[in-house]
Amino acid sequence: MSKGLLIVVSGPSGAGKGTICKELLNELDLNISISATTRNPRIGEVDGENYFFITKDKFQDMLLEKQFLEHAEVYGNYYGTPKSNVLDMLEEGKDVLLEIDIQGALSVKEIYPDGVFIFILPPSMEELKNRIEKRGTETKEAMLNRLESAYKELKYVFKYDYGVLNDTVESAVDNIKAIIKAEKCKVNRQKNLIKNIEEV
Amino acid sequence: MSKGLLIVVSGPSGAGKGTICKELLNELDLNISISATTRNPRIGEVDGENYFFITKDKFQDMLLEKQFLEHAEVYGNYYGTPKSNVLDMLEEGKDVLLEIDIQGALSVKEIYPDGVFIFILPPSMEELKNRIEKRGTETKEAMLNRLESAYKELKYVFKYDYGVLNDTVESAVDNIKAIIKAEKCKVNRQKNLIKNIEEV
Repeated sequence: MSKGLLIVVSGPSGAGKGTICKELLNELDLNISISATTRNPRIGEVDGENYFFITKDKFQDMLLEKQFLEHAEVYGNYYGTPKSNVLDMLEEGKDVLLEIDIQGALSVKEIYPDGVFIFILPPSMEELKNRIEKRGTETKEAMLNRLESAYKELKYVFKYDYGVLNDTVESAVDNIKAIIKAEKCKVNRQKNLIKNIEEV
Repeated sequence: MSKGLLIVVSGPSGAGKGTICKELLNELDLNISISATTRNPRIGEVDGENYFFITKDKFQDMLLEKQFLEHAEVYGNYYGTPKSNVLDMLEEGKDVLLEIDIQGALSVKEIYPDGVFIFILPPSMEELKNRIEKRGTETKEAMLNRLESAYKELKYVFKYDYGVLNDTVESAVDNIKAIIKAEKCKVNRQKNLIKNIEEV
């Protein structure tokens, strides 16, 4: 059996990776990884389902033992993608979708370069501005900061395998579905090709 | 403007690359290259349309000047894919489909490694045998020779980017369409990605 694909969807904030990943999960048979976090569960959140809720000590231990594919600190809380969870699914031939920021994606690439690294690009800075504005949850200054940092992040696209323009969700999802299908045809992902033919 | 893709569809005889390429030409906006040949035109064949009909001297000159992407001798006649013709189309952003045998594909890869190299595999040796038998144009011995050489050729799949199983024409064509779409999303094929975003 061939290994599953690790599909990493990443890009600057406001590029629309969340919406795209939701649609991919609807349309394809993809698995997601459950993150570990040190923050407290919110009402209705279930341990082992929404997150693995762990203590800071446990998180530190896991970090030292290099048990994360990537991790980040957000507002004093730690979040991480447990390595074993993801690698087990891949070994079982299951495809795994990871939606993460650029720093996280680059860390995953170092540990698992066999992944498929997809960068979502906004169709224009104008459109990115509109999208960030629409969220309306931020001050004008915070928004401008976010826009500037998104712009700086664009240059990281060259560290990725694929760059997908999010002009419409449909076309972006369509392109990513094609990328997944194509990656499964790659010769170096299906070493049993000839063996299977011999066996018949 | 991004360059066009050079899509090389290749594989052992009997794998079904001809049928697949015909269907691809029906469904996609692909260009084909016109081969040069030293054989005489058959009735109805038009110079510059079916082939460029040239003399052996001219062919030899072109060979010496490295004007072919690949060439072959078949029953004393020479066939070649003129380089300039193909490269011009690619520069103009046109995608070019080349259906060629394995030796030809490897020669193209040396000259133009940026191409997309796709190897068509028969679903099984049994099926390959059936297909070659169905043609019914050969003696049993010739058929067995062809089958043996097709089998030996399978190992060349590892020199290609993609291996596409031809279990049905539909699924093979579907996979190749996905490969073409995915290749167009490759970061290294669209260097203007960020530039386009800045310009808006």
